[in-house]
Amino acid sequence: MDFAKGHGTGNDFVIVLDRAGTRPLEAAQVAALCDRRSGLGGDGLLRVVPSEDSSALDSSSPPAKWFMDYRNADGSIAEMCGNGVRVFARYLLEQGLVDGEEIPVATRGGIKTVKVVGDEFSVDMGPASFGPASQASIDGFEWPGQAVSMGNPHLVCQLGDAAELDSLELHHRPHYDETVFPEGVNVEFVVGEAPHVRMRVHERGVGETHSCGTGACAVAAVALRRAGLDTGVCKVDVPGGTLTVTVTESTIHLQGPAVIVAEGTARI
Amino acid sequence: MDFAKGHGTGNDFVIVLDRAGTRPLEAAQVAALCDRRSGLGGDGLLRVVPSEDSSALDSSSPPAKWFMDYRNADGSIAEMCGNGVRVFARYLLEQGLVDGEEIPVATRGGIKTVKVVGDEFSVDMGPASFGPASQASIDGFEWPGQAVSMGNPHLVCQLGDAAELDSLELHHRPHYDETVFPEGVNVEFVVGEAPHVRMRVHERGVGETHSCGTGACAVAAVALRRAGLDTGVCKVDVPGGTLTVTVTESTIHLQGPAVIVAEGTARI
Repeated sequence: MDFAKGHGTGNDFVIVLDRAGTRPLEAAQVAALCDRRSGLGGDGLLRVVPSEDSSALDSSSPPAKWFMDYRNADGSIAEMCGNGVRVFARYLLEQGLVDGEEIPVATRGGIKTVKVVGDEFSVDMGPASFGPASQASIDGFEWPGQAVSMGNPHLVCQLGDAAELDSLELHHRPHYDETVFPEGVNVEFVVGEAPHVRMRVHERGVGETHSCGTGACAVAAVALRRAGLDTGVCKVDVPGGTLTVTVTESTIHLQGPAVIVAEGTARI
Repeated sequence: MDFAKGHGTGNDFVIVLDRAGTRPLEAAQVAALCDRRSGLGGDGLLRVVPSEDSSALDSSSPPAKWFMDYRNADGSIAEMCGNGVRVFARYLLEQGLVDGEEIPVATRGGIKTVKVVGDEFSVDMGPASFGPASQASIDGFEWPGQAVSMGNPHLVCQLGDAAELDSLELHHRPHYDETVFPEGVNVEFVVGEAPHVRMRVHERGVGETHSCGTGACAVAAVALRRAGLDTGVCKVDVPGGTLTVTVTESTIHLQGPAVIVAEGTARI
């Protein structure tokens, strides 16, 4: 099976092109490809298939030629991934499957238009919705936090300084209020102030990751609000690089690098 | 750069063929290729180069056509790797670079002859040398252990049952007696008895890994001795698969699977 591998700020993906849309992947195949030791390794898999009638997904958007069949590393199906769709757009461009500077991509979360911005890619992630104040704790230390939904739940906690952020033990799930987050939550720990902050994240069901697109959006929205702003631009350093988040009155744009690092043939 | 990726019981490697031996790899290149998010990912890298005069390395062994330039994931140089040399031999066979069922490979640790055994590969790892009794502890729990050298230092600790093994917290380095192991130690935790045991390992400077060839040899030697045997065969289940270790009066053979999972071109 032909594959490519790419990443956006360290959020990495196996990419499989299925030009005819006739080769669905079993969950076990996806898991084997994404296994970091016995496979190629990835946080998820992007299957590139034709979008026969993307208007059925979202008639208000421009037609998308390609559908992003996004799969988690365990093979399960997911709606969308902010870093994944940027890598997907990079792949489409490099393979000559699309052209232009605006690339509509059909996803299970609707059509997402990815824009080429210099050597980076930007995607409209939709607006943030603020929830209640809450808190997270690790090993008995507790930090106040702000609940934010980006479609998925986040809890953004501000820390005192960089040393505190660096020393966090994120091998285990932080404790949070399960009455506020009955379906779990992605917990972001942040230092600094808008327009430039740094974060680490514990992703629900995964553990600490090098990057989380929706998490960066939630963190930027909170950082801007802490600075008294409802809109603006905030850079967010994640362990795998830097994302630029633009918050407008109606939505949030996530911009950052997206690169293809290898292509080849897998025996899986 | 053309590459392959392979693994032996979950110990995985990027493989780079340099037929002329004219393209040495900088440490930074190796680290970029082995990065699990922004590269291809691997516990190490196997550079395949001609062994111009392998008799200089070890005049008592059969001549080796190929030299295994083994590199750790950070780019540093290492002498030998028991799982790596088995994957190296698989690659040589598949590429038609050698033939036959006995494959001499030049390494910085001398010439190692890898034997094809059915669909597996076996390598002579040299003898185990028993050191003193010692102990390891994690979070205040302590287990008695046996120091064993396989060229590199090991501390083999027997646990009570499988539940205890499964619940071990190996994100951090276990505590050990630094007067016994001034240069650090690989710590193996074991359940079961010869001829079949199961282990987890914390590798010195790395963390928990899916497999450790020298660790499996040390564990088998201890298991056999616990059963009152100086020689024999012991299967060792590691998180990434099963290794078969044969202890003779003069040496230890490590046998197990070695597979190539992908080939391609990397932009690194």
